[in-house]
Amino acid sequence: MMKYTKVTGEVVTELEKIVGAKNVLTDMDSMDKYSHDESASKFKAFPEIVVKPQNTEQVSKTLSLANEKRIPVTFRGQGTGLSCGAVPLLGGILMSFEDMNKILEIDEGNLVAVVESGVVLLNLREELERKGLFYPADPGEKSSAIGGNVCTNAGGMNGVKYGNTRGYILGLEAVLPSGKILKLGGKTIKRSTGYELMHLIIGSEGTLAAVTKIILKLIKLPKLFITLYVPFPNLHDAIKTVPEIIRRKITPTAIEFLEREPLLLAEEHLGKTMPHHEAEAYLILRINGEKEDELLEVGEAVAEICMENNASDVFIADTKEAQDKIWDLRGRFYEALVQNKTVKLVDTVVPPSTVADYMKEVKRISEKCGVRIMGFGHAGDGNVHLHLMKDKLSDEEWKKK
Amino acid sequence: MMKYTKVTGEVVTELEKIVGAKNVLTDMDSMDKYSHDESASKFKAFPEIVVKPQNTEQVSKTLSLANEKRIPVTFRGQGTGLSCGAVPLLGGILMSFEDMNKILEIDEGNLVAVVESGVVLLNLREELERKGLFYPADPGEKSSAIGGNVCTNAGGMNGVKYGNTRGYILGLEAVLPSGKILKLGGKTIKRSTGYELMHLIIGSEGTLAAVTKIILKLIKLPKLFITLYVPFPNLHDAIKTVPEIIRRKITPTAIEFLEREPLLLAEEHLGKTMPHHEAEAYLILRINGEKEDELLEVGEAVAEICMENNASDVFIADTKEAQDKIWDLRGRFYEALVQNKTVKLVDTVVPPSTVADYMKEVKRISEKCGVRIMGFGHAGDGNVHLHLMKDKLSDEEWKKK
Repeated sequence: MMKYTKVTGEVVTELEKIVGAKNVLTDMDSMDKYSHDESASKFKAFPEIVVKPQNTEQVSKTLSLANEKRIPVTFRGQGTGLSCGAVPLLGGILMSFEDMNKILEIDEGNLVAVVESGVVLLNLREELERKGLFYPADPGEKSSAIGGNVCTNAGGMNGVKYGNTRGYILGLEAVLPSGKILKLGGKTIKRSTGYELMHLIIGSEGTLAAVTKIILKLIKLPKLFITLYVPFPNLHDAIKTVPEIIRRKITPTAIEFLEREPLLLAEEHLGKTMPHHEAEAYLILRINGEKEDELLEVGEAVAEICMENNASDVFIADTKEAQDKIWDLRGRFYEALVQNKTVKLVDTVVPPSTVADYMKEVKRISEKCGVRIMGFGHAGDGNVHLHLMKDKLSDEEWKKK
Repeated sequence: MMKYTKVTGEVVTELEKIVGAKNVLTDMDSMDKYSHDESASKFKAFPEIVVKPQNTEQVSKTLSLANEKRIPVTFRGQGTGLSCGAVPLLGGILMSFEDMNKILEIDEGNLVAVVESGVVLLNLREELERKGLFYPADPGEKSSAIGGNVCTNAGGMNGVKYGNTRGYILGLEAVLPSGKILKLGGKTIKRSTGYELMHLIIGSEGTLAAVTKIILKLIKLPKLFITLYVPFPNLHDAIKTVPEIIRRKITPTAIEFLEREPLLLAEEHLGKTMPHHEAEAYLILRINGEKEDELLEVGEAVAEICMENNASDVFIADTKEAQDKIWDLRGRFYEALVQNKTVKLVDTVVPPSTVADYMKEVKRISEKCGVRIMGFGHAGDGNVHLHLMKDKLSDEEWKKK
């Protein structure tokens, strides 16, 4: 077992020298928000000190000091994770990147942005939209920090068409525990020099290095969107429609499936309604394009495939308002279910064409064990969120399961 | 210095047992083609034995034996590389994947193909096209093996829009020197489990593991293409047009620039002609799309930007034949220049928007040193091939430079 050291008064003084006294927190009250993330369990662990570096040099000096003194360090972006990655389980130093939140450059000639790792996704998106640009990786949580997205290789609803965060990272500045600053990758799309350390750091959950700057690949902002909201008589029919759409070579940016039960819970919790909620199951699809007639043509083709696969109707939302309403409600399912006694969230991925069979098996196990499992997710890229609910059980009964 | 062992008669017998006697070569004549790749220097190094495994188990057993005996192993796909990566500099075992060339599965429901690493790119492309599918990574050399593409993270002319090989790899089966078989990644688009060893192996040039199977991400085959062939009065005007196109949010699949001198050499060598060859410099652009009117609209927008930037004309090729003629000629520049005394090929990458300045500096150095340098390449993704020519110098003069 590795031996760790506590943060002494002397270390506090040194850290204050590195980042400035006002960027160091040590009292329990102000450290409370750094003791947990947004996971259902709200598991808490307090750091001994919170340090907010203002630049890469301060990150380097802090890590070098911590390494020398054998003090554990945990990194935190906006703390919106659901897996306690930003929770300082070992105490020590919590390094928050909240102040390193500058968009350093938007380079339109190379379709590249250079940002500090604490940049909030929503702010980046708005800034890019003003220039007609788009960063396609789309984690559900828009208030997350891009550095957290990189360290977890965050996915999201656009995964069908655009994939995960990894695909849009061209370069990183990262700091090793020794304090050594690495500059990996760059503004070039092509690059094949030496071992791919950048991709090793992406998704490494802060265990290999602190990410301080990120070079992002951008695309042109898609001009037009439509959203199809499609009721089905059962979940299996809904999900098995998806590989049919893919087989016809149609690529929506997002394909979500959901069941009636979590939908009703979400509507009730949020006081909002979807265009329809009487069916057992739904698909929600977003399609983007450059021209209205092209978009409608694709929309009609998708509607036809849905109807062939037992859809009872197809609602098409083409105004921004109508679409935002659907996606906002869908985006807040997690929040609504957590309020309704989700005890465990299991985030799973299977090959997209097997989601229907997978959900069938989940239902079978769910019934066998007497635990209610609500599943919804991204039918297009096979990412299924399973919420294990304890609503029918008392705490004691649950523990027995 | 690591100590290596020679391939003894005993080892030959063991290797014959593993892969079968007919899949082992030891005579110099039949090993000749395994002693070099397609680089200009035609540098040769002979292996002591060539082994052609038929499956992953044979790869594993061969590597395990070589590891135990300390015999160096070099991997080879189709040997089309230009950097001697497949040349067995240390002798020992040359492991050729030429017989592991099966397309194991084309999964239309998940837009995924599973292939052995010896599959030739051209064969894969044809098989996919029949199903309306497309593997977008596009190295110039269509007779290369996909395993070589993975190990070098091969780029190609489609890089502007689609990026390198890396972006289309979802999973690998790879064998470590110990013989241990790793299965990394899978058919899912999303995946964030543990450290990203798959990306570490991609581009590692065979130094970490033998790649035996590959899971590829596919896209829908683009329906329509047009090619613009655009003469400019000078190279600088041609290249500086490219960031203007990118800034207007137009993404051609390929943007190449070339000068008159290599063009004339290539025309002469190949006995074919481009639509025009009197200008000092050219851009060649390929644009794809789903609809004819959309394609023409984008083509016209590009033509307009080119004319604004001093283009003297714009030729639009829309038939397959006319386009193939242009791209085939462009694709064989390397071959034509090598025949015309290229002494050194330097493959460089810079941020796309800086290519014009980069070429200016290359020309300055070229003149200063009295070495003729011909540059052409992918203006859209910043990949520039520099050919240092010794045509004006005798061998002795060249050596002095």
